[in-house]
Amino acid sequence: MNQVNELAKALIRRRSITPEDAGCQALIAERLEALGFRCEALRFGEVDNLWAVRGEKSPLFCFAGHTDVVPTGPEDSWTHPPFEAVESDGWLWGRGAADMKGGLAAMICAVEDFLSQHPDPGLRLAFLITSDEEGPAQEGTKKVMETLKDRGVRIDYCVVGEPSSRERVGDVVRHGRRGSLSGQVTVSGIQGHVAYPQNADNPIPRLAAALSELSQRQWDEGDADFPPTSFQISNFNAGTGANNVIPATAEAWFNFRYSPRQTPEGLQQMVNEVLERHAPRHECFWRDSGRPFITRGGPLVEAVRDAVRDQAGLEPEFSTSGGTSDGRFIAPTGTQLVELGPTNATIHAVDERIRVDELDQLAGIYRDILERMAS
Amino acid sequence: MNQVNELAKALIRRRSITPEDAGCQALIAERLEALGFRCEALRFGEVDNLWAVRGEKSPLFCFAGHTDVVPTGPEDSWTHPPFEAVESDGWLWGRGAADMKGGLAAMICAVEDFLSQHPDPGLRLAFLITSDEEGPAQEGTKKVMETLKDRGVRIDYCVVGEPSSRERVGDVVRHGRRGSLSGQVTVSGIQGHVAYPQNADNPIPRLAAALSELSQRQWDEGDADFPPTSFQISNFNAGTGANNVIPATAEAWFNFRYSPRQTPEGLQQMVNEVLERHAPRHECFWRDSGRPFITRGGPLVEAVRDAVRDQAGLEPEFSTSGGTSDGRFIAPTGTQLVELGPTNATIHAVDERIRVDELDQLAGIYRDILERMAS
Repeated sequence: MNQVNELAKALIRRRSITPEDAGCQALIAERLEALGFRCEALRFGEVDNLWAVRGEKSPLFCFAGHTDVVPTGPEDSWTHPPFEAVESDGWLWGRGAADMKGGLAAMICAVEDFLSQHPDPGLRLAFLITSDEEGPAQEGTKKVMETLKDRGVRIDYCVVGEPSSRERVGDVVRHGRRGSLSGQVTVSGIQGHVAYPQNADNPIPRLAAALSELSQRQWDEGDADFPPTSFQISNFNAGTGANNVIPATAEAWFNFRYSPRQTPEGLQQMVNEVLERHAPRHECFWRDSGRPFITRGGPLVEAVRDAVRDQAGLEPEFSTSGGTSDGRFIAPTGTQLVELGPTNATIHAVDERIRVDELDQLAGIYRDILERMAS
Repeated sequence: MNQVNELAKALIRRRSITPEDAGCQALIAERLEALGFRCEALRFGEVDNLWAVRGEKSPLFCFAGHTDVVPTGPEDSWTHPPFEAVESDGWLWGRGAADMKGGLAAMICAVEDFLSQHPDPGLRLAFLITSDEEGPAQEGTKKVMETLKDRGVRIDYCVVGEPSSRERVGDVVRHGRRGSLSGQVTVSGIQGHVAYPQNADNPIPRLAAALSELSQRQWDEGDADFPPTSFQISNFNAGTGANNVIPATAEAWFNFRYSPRQTPEGLQQMVNEVLERHAPRHECFWRDSGRPFITRGGPLVEAVRDAVRDQAGLEPEFSTSGGTSDGRFIAPTGTQLVELGPTNATIHAVDERIRVDELDQLAGIYRDILERMAS
């Protein structure tokens, strides 16, 4: 197998802070074209995307990921400069090492190795790579999936290389994600002097009462695959800064992470009912950031489980926890999808890094999954 | 009687934006010294205060007020420049016309007229004038009262010339004020990602629940003289500005206006009990801005009632409503105290003004009160 760490280093050295790709996809396309992939650069807005496909068979098996990385924070806080890809004591250091240039390098080397043994496998192979996963995610995977839908292309199986693992590669595999629904509510009152409350209508206790009730509600109990639906308030702002003025408005932002037992429409209706009761004069703006999805079983889940067992000697935990990922744009088309990648202890942090042997092990698992899916 | 409007104009033309006095007190002292008052300039920090006293008899009757005014706001929004004291169509325009240079002018002219008739009245007369009523109020009346206390001087009766009237001079007299108690509470939690609430502790719903409960509580029912105690939240701030982060802290400011049925200690204890239950990790800072006081009856209240009846043909409403005033520093020494002054419709606003006949009527009421108290 080609050296995964060398490809990872070449990618880390391209300073692709979101939404920049900084030449990563060109490098990947060069490697994939050498394998017979037809590579297509799909640029939407400021975002570079790569759709690469090889063969005409069915099913279509796709690796998905992103070349963009989050900002470094203060570079002089890093032990090694974040874009130098220093290898030291068995670790490869740099922004994106774990999230997720290491995973991209492992996928590509795995496919290279697999095709060298099986030049005509019983699979159509694809890569879907974006540079807009860490940002607003509106011009990346989402747009590529719309393009594929227009063309009638459906992905049957997808492995997303996001850093899913907790302590060892493969110990955690995500086979679904909760939905995410956000709201911004503004309650209107009547401004006035605190000494004359009868002439004012204070929006703060109205909003506080509504949010308190919503926070105490048990939305559901979750199930074997999903934790209970959670409601969290992230911001609450009201007041003029003076301590003798009742303000005219109060605003809060909140977010649901919810299981398939809930629908965004149902959650909105329940929130509106509570707001209506405590604060009839309110306005609420909603953002549907991703529906819940899950791949409960099937050939891909089996192949992943067996590959992790054989290559890492682990029984993977299938989980739906964590934030959102680009999987939310792919899974709803009926794709069987898992997320499997490096350990995530250092992602988004100063001194992001990955163990070199972890890269090799991940490439081995990916290759093993390909073998099983092709057989 | 000397012309009240002329003295009011001279005072308005001195640009005494708080805490500036801008020579107002020197002008007043000149007038009072001519009447035999012993005038003492008491400067504390940046604040000019005037203590003027005439005679050695008992009881001590004091007029109290302030020369400072609130800022004008945009001067070009005014119909007439705020410090030019333009008289037009029976109105005198300018910042401080009603709050309270008009009242000061009326007091001085009333005393001049009264002493011209009664050069040796059965009262000791005094003026307590500050230039720090519209500001923090820490170096003004408060400090003068401490000085008088050290000297063993007690004010028996006090008329504060604050603009108490609603539609006609004398229709509302304040014979007390509610107490004011403010708190700033910070609830601590544990910051985290909204997708991992089990690793965080969101302080927002804790604080919201506590404030909601406190807002719904009926603290008391008030009585004949005081409205029910009120609890108002003026500010609530929490959040990082990101919608996926549970913040580490949440903060709110609140204020009680309370009757003598409550004590600051009792209110604090009840708030702490509620906070303790919903948000054990909290810190609360308190500010006692003034205890409640009331003059329920006695010679001064009778004299004021009769003077308003005779001079204005009105039955005054005795009220404790409104914000705080410097009366809070004087009344607790056992002084019988009322606040009686011009109509307050334009105070603190652009185009502050007073009717010239209102000034004359107010001086007439003040003079009548003096007659009754001296008899």
